[in-house]
Amino acid sequence: MVEISASLVKELRALTGAGVIDCRNALAECRGDLEKAQQLLRARGLASAARKSGRVAKEGLVASYIHSGGRLGVLVEVNCETDFVARTDDFKTLARDIAMQVAASDPRYVSRDDVPSEVAAAERAAYLAKARADGKNGVDADAEAEKQMEKFYQGASLLEQPFIRDQRRTVGDLIKDVIARTGENILVRRFARFRLGEG
Amino acid sequence: MVEISASLVKELRALTGAGVIDCRNALAECRGDLEKAQQLLRARGLASAARKSGRVAKEGLVASYIHSGGRLGVLVEVNCETDFVARTDDFKTLARDIAMQVAASDPRYVSRDDVPSEVAAAERAAYLAKARADGKNGVDADAEAEKQMEKFYQGASLLEQPFIRDQRRTVGDLIKDVIARTGENILVRRFARFRLGEG
Repeated sequence: MVEISASLVKELRALTGAGVIDCRNALAECRGDLEKAQQLLRARGLASAARKSGRVAKEGLVASYIHSGGRLGVLVEVNCETDFVARTDDFKTLARDIAMQVAASDPRYVSRDDVPSEVAAAERAAYLAKARADGKNGVDADAEAEKQMEKFYQGASLLEQPFIRDQRRTVGDLIKDVIARTGENILVRRFARFRLGEG
Repeated sequence: MVEISASLVKELRALTGAGVIDCRNALAECRGDLEKAQQLLRARGLASAARKSGRVAKEGLVASYIHSGGRLGVLVEVNCETDFVARTDDFKTLARDIAMQVAASDPRYVSRDDVPSEVAAAERAAYLAKARADGKNGVDADAEAEKQMEKFYQGASLLEQPFIRDQRRTVGDLIKDVIARTGENILVRRFARFRLGEG
């Protein structure tokens, strides 16, 4: 068995848009060869349409949002494929909306895939202990812990949070709409959030 | 010997303004007791005037600077002691100048004290290897490596960089001027710098 690093999986995901498990499996089958794994995912139809041509989202915008007269600030990088799309009002609005979302809702990660396994394990253990303390046992305790984990993922992941300006949709839905309108792959690469006196 | 963590040293520094080594020694002597270590530093006159009264810089501003039409962005937190000073034009200008400095000069750390020891060790080893490859030996090689380390620290530390708008002074000098004018302790707590497609 070849050891498949998280960074290699991430790279393949950026290239193909395929899911974590599909990427990990493809890399394992191709013994860590990135190009072969990419071809395999394409052959299986798991690489998304936008990325099939090998286009990578490296353009985009770095946007900021300062709140409460400088007591809270956010910096976000949102990527698309071309500078042309990055300059559209549609994309600028998206980048600003995402910065505002991070300011208002304090996500800890871009997506649930970014939650480190040790963080997830600690959360799960705490929920399990709580469920047992509440008198639940066996499968009932497991089910309760999983329910709480799902809540944790939804709250901690930017893409799964309800969009602050339209709570019926998630931030991920918002991004998918802009992907559909522009025809380009769009992703949130990273964000920073500074609250005065914190951290 | 009590193990003194870096975060405890950092906390004592924030409280007293004393140097890293003084703080570490005081904490070791007081077996990790933060309050006793603070009193010890005061007794020795090593806590700075502004901080002797126990005033802590927890107010201030989070400021951003976006460059090149969104291809580069910076978020910075600059602290002072009161909201009153944070609202002055003098302080706002300082925060903005620091954000621009980070954008232009790409520092890796706020001060040389923030350089992790393993990073410093790796730099020093590389300079030493280079000096030896250039035919220098013993003390000559050491001296050359130290000279290069000094350059590394000056380039990598925000506070030691020449200020972009007045190269005769460092960013640290600029901050000292505002400290003198406002009578408040001022410090750069942290910064983030995103360049499109990097990191």
